[in-house]
Amino acid sequence: MSRYISFVRPDGTSSFGRLEGGTVLDLGKPGTSAWLKDSLDRDLGALVVTGEFARDAVTLLPVVPNAGKILCVGLNYATHVAETGREQKEHPAIFTRWADSLVADGEPMVRPPESERFDYEGELAVIIGKGGRRIAPEKAMEHVAGFAPFNDGSIRDWQRHNIQFTPGKTWPGTGGFGPAMIPASLVADLASQRVQTRLNGELVQDQPVSDMIWDIPTVIAYCSTFTELHPGDVIASGTPGGVGDKRKPPLYMKSGDIVEVSIGVIGTLTNPITDEE
Amino acid sequence: MSRYISFVRPDGTSSFGRLEGGTVLDLGKPGTSAWLKDSLDRDLGALVVTGEFARDAVTLLPVVPNAGKILCVGLNYATHVAETGREQKEHPAIFTRWADSLVADGEPMVRPPESERFDYEGELAVIIGKGGRRIAPEKAMEHVAGFAPFNDGSIRDWQRHNIQFTPGKTWPGTGGFGPAMIPASLVADLASQRVQTRLNGELVQDQPVSDMIWDIPTVIAYCSTFTELHPGDVIASGTPGGVGDKRKPPLYMKSGDIVEVSIGVIGTLTNPITDEE
Repeated sequence: MSRYISFVRPDGTSSFGRLEGGTVLDLGKPGTSAWLKDSLDRDLGALVVTGEFARDAVTLLPVVPNAGKILCVGLNYATHVAETGREQKEHPAIFTRWADSLVADGEPMVRPPESERFDYEGELAVIIGKGGRRIAPEKAMEHVAGFAPFNDGSIRDWQRHNIQFTPGKTWPGTGGFGPAMIPASLVADLASQRVQTRLNGELVQDQPVSDMIWDIPTVIAYCSTFTELHPGDVIASGTPGGVGDKRKPPLYMKSGDIVEVSIGVIGTLTNPITDEE
Repeated sequence: MSRYISFVRPDGTSSFGRLEGGTVLDLGKPGTSAWLKDSLDRDLGALVVTGEFARDAVTLLPVVPNAGKILCVGLNYATHVAETGREQKEHPAIFTRWADSLVADGEPMVRPPESERFDYEGELAVIIGKGGRRIAPEKAMEHVAGFAPFNDGSIRDWQRHNIQFTPGKTWPGTGGFGPAMIPASLVADLASQRVQTRLNGELVQDQPVSDMIWDIPTVIAYCSTFTELHPGDVIASGTPGGVGDKRKPPLYMKSGDIVEVSIGVIGTLTNPITDEE
């Protein structure tokens, strides 16, 4: 299945390409940095291959390393709403991250020294291919380039310092986004894909996409009402129940742990945990 | 007093410059777009003047039209905390906007058809000049390039759709940022400057900067702990009591209204209100 990645070439420039087995087919202009988001409104399968690298010769980047807008849906699975003790509202909770808070597949997710409460949140990331404003739900999937696993890693005590989540949700290197984008056209049965998070191999979150309270078209329609979406923008669609912070006893991530987010055919995002030095 | 603006030149390219009386001294490279944020880590007063325009010959932009991060402090004046009925916490509430939600001084702030509850929030904007992470409070003012008036215009019903403010806080064209940046070195007495908002001439918010619960150095230290700040990033430092939504009866902005945010020597931001077409 065609998968699209962003990466750093051996010469240090950034690019994007198609992963075929152990080979990366470069789709960016050689010798200069090129970005996936600048080609998402085109037919990726029709782009000219400009180079070829062994997978091991490149350094993976987050799927969209320079996403302009990253919208995160809070409280989008009833199990998670229940474990937080919050009431379910008529509309989704939306907050934001910045792109510098995300690392690639295989890169360490970083716990800062300010907190012991570093938690996972496995999520399905929706990558916008065609921008728009006030996108109708029935047209929403036409605006989706593809999907990728996402870990909305959270610093729980800072998230609850006050009533807005931002201070716990955008620490450098606390989230994961990868390994690759699977084109939406290749995911025949999105609803039945399961969002599964494993911490050191133990399954800690496990629900199908169909359990979302607000489905992807509804979320795209809602978000594009209050902000314009552009190619490469990302919607992290919310996390199932089972977060570490609500377990008894709580289960936080610590240096040496391995966290994985698997979403069926969409792939698996794996990150070791490290303490910030 | 030297004031710095961002603007569109008569040839359609963007630039930034110093406003002296009715004259704009262009500080950007001619013939191509130049941005204030790319020079904020330098001595603006020492930049070469590359051109000169009459003030009326250019179109004003928001002070930093392409700010990478815009952090907004909620609940930073006791009067506003009280009118919202919320409890005061130990740390500030931080949420975000995107740059495309802001218009320049003189441009219309736009009410979308989805809501009648378009509200003002006069604020002091802090413009970061020197980036950093974990900036100590006692060093924080060294990271500030300057100040400007800011209107954190809000769509109140969408802000309260769920527990996160984003859906009410970043609609296109709902906020104002300008007219100009006053260098921090020229504001001798920041604490005593009053944040004053007027709607159709009526004074609706009026408190000195010294009334902030978390002062500017504290907010910079806090925000730079959870995210790296870069030149041109903006911290909107919170709004005093008196917002329209908490008045009885509520006072929302409507087409034809004029809203002004004045902050003493820092200047006055004036925006007409218009309905989105």
